Amino acid sequence: MGNKKAKDSLIKFIKAAVTREGFKKVVLGLSGGVDSATVAYLSKEALGSDNVIAVLMPYKDFDPEGVKFAGEIIKNLGIKSYKIDISPMIDAYFKNFPDADNIRRGNKMARERMTVLYDLSKKENALVIGCGNKTEILLGYCTLYGDTACALNPLATLYKTEVYKLAKSLGVPEGIIKRKPTAGLWKGQTDEGELGHSYADMDRLLSLMVDAKKPDSELKKAGFDEKFIRDIKKRIKDAEFKRKSAIIPLV
Amino acid sequence: MGNKKAKDSLIKFIKAAVTREGFKKVVLGLSGGVDSATVAYLSKEALGSDNVIAVLMPYKDFDPEGVKFAGEIIKNLGIKSYKIDISPMIDAYFKNFPDADNIRRGNKMARERMTVLYDLSKKENALVIGCGNKTEILLGYCTLYGDTACALNPLATLYKTEVYKLAKSLGVPEGIIKRKPTAGLWKGQTDEGELGHSYADMDRLLSLMVDAKKPDSELKKAGFDEKFIRDIKKRIKDAEFKRKSAIIPLV
Repeated sequence: MGNKKAKDSLIKFIKAAVTREGFKKVVLGLSGGVDSATVAYLSKEALGSDNVIAVLMPYKDFDPEGVKFAGEIIKNLGIKSYKIDISPMIDAYFKNFPDADNIRRGNKMARERMTVLYDLSKKENALVIGCGNKTEILLGYCTLYGDTACALNPLATLYKTEVYKLAKSLGVPEGIIKRKPTAGLWKGQTDEGELGHSYADMDRLLSLMVDAKKPDSELKKAGFDEKFIRDIKKRIKDAEFKRKSAIIPLV
Repeated sequence: MGNKKAKDSLIKFIKAAVTREGFKKVVLGLSGGVDSATVAYLSKEALGSDNVIAVLMPYKDFDPEGVKFAGEIIKNLGIKSYKIDISPMIDAYFKNFPDADNIRRGNKMARERMTVLYDLSKKENALVIGCGNKTEILLGYCTLYGDTACALNPLATLYKTEVYKLAKSLGVPEGIIKRKPTAGLWKGQTDEGELGHSYADMDRLLSLMVDAKKPDSELKKAGFDEKFIRDIKKRIKDAEFKRKSAIIPLV
């Protein structure tokens, strides 16, 4: 999908979905990363600056650059914002489990942010708009009932590398586009460091594997080694539970 | 469905679903009410007492009787438990919004409990088992991404009045079965007070309206007045958003 086409169709999608649900406004968590920046810019185009509410939810000083960029977006778009420090809630909880690892802490933070967004969605009569992209969703690089929880999710059909192109065409500031992607779940975290591969490589492989349904033999011919293919397949399989609803009895 | 049949089929359901997902254990929020008590008893039958973890999550002294009954269940079943006071996390958040109403506070509490259960599900390698019944789900008497969030939900196909019968057949203590149902979201709250109707009436109406698909004329013949029918229909419609997934673009 070309950038212009993606941009127009996603603006139309947001407008239609929000209207159909009987709302005018959206609320989103703004991290200062490229995904939420892109959703903020798209939402402003779709709904107007009076109908987009951005929420900054920093934990301690984990990502001061993100907070700075989020402030820049809010200023550029002229949208309403809240800043809620999630440190007191997170720290109060982990007093019960002082030895909890980074994964547990990161997931709790992602879910705390969801609870804040949903509370503000009630206060502001706004729909929660998600910022998860196709790469994250396929690989399960997201928190169930955390950043995956939303009323609508415009980027769900775009790979991370496509989000970058879209961000550029929307006028998202260069500094945000050039940042190393991070989920901000611990200090110094980067997505690519944690996933062990570059988004460029993962997206190219996912596109051949998931969309074009190529067999392993062709993936290897395209230059992907066996371990990489196996790793990505395992991630997709392990993430299945994040993409399905609760199991209920068939009686 | 008879009590014996419901009991056997739900025990089988829990065992099969947990095994199929590659787990042995479940974790549940135990409020001291009849729904979570029933799920605890069913889970113990299905998985054994070593594989059921109960989590008490009181807010201040909103429901001391519930805490007492939850303790009784844990002792009766011989299951592992945690007690996490959610007051510090909730109070830390509402310092930002001291004027927030009971609905916002109640929803935040339900979602906080979800985040605790999911954190402990990671720690304990256990699936989160939900306790929502069919009456609540249809009427939307539940919090999206709060008590609705779970990996499996055995009571989803039983009305509240059916849960009572099942509870009796499982040996849930009389005191729990006789309590007035409460979501415990504020002091003195009762479900029936808030919903404005008795569970007996609502379940009888829902069963005719939703399951038997009777037209209004027959509902009226069955003794339900127009306002009651309209009220329940509106609740079902207004709750639609709680039963559906995020909207994503079709591109």
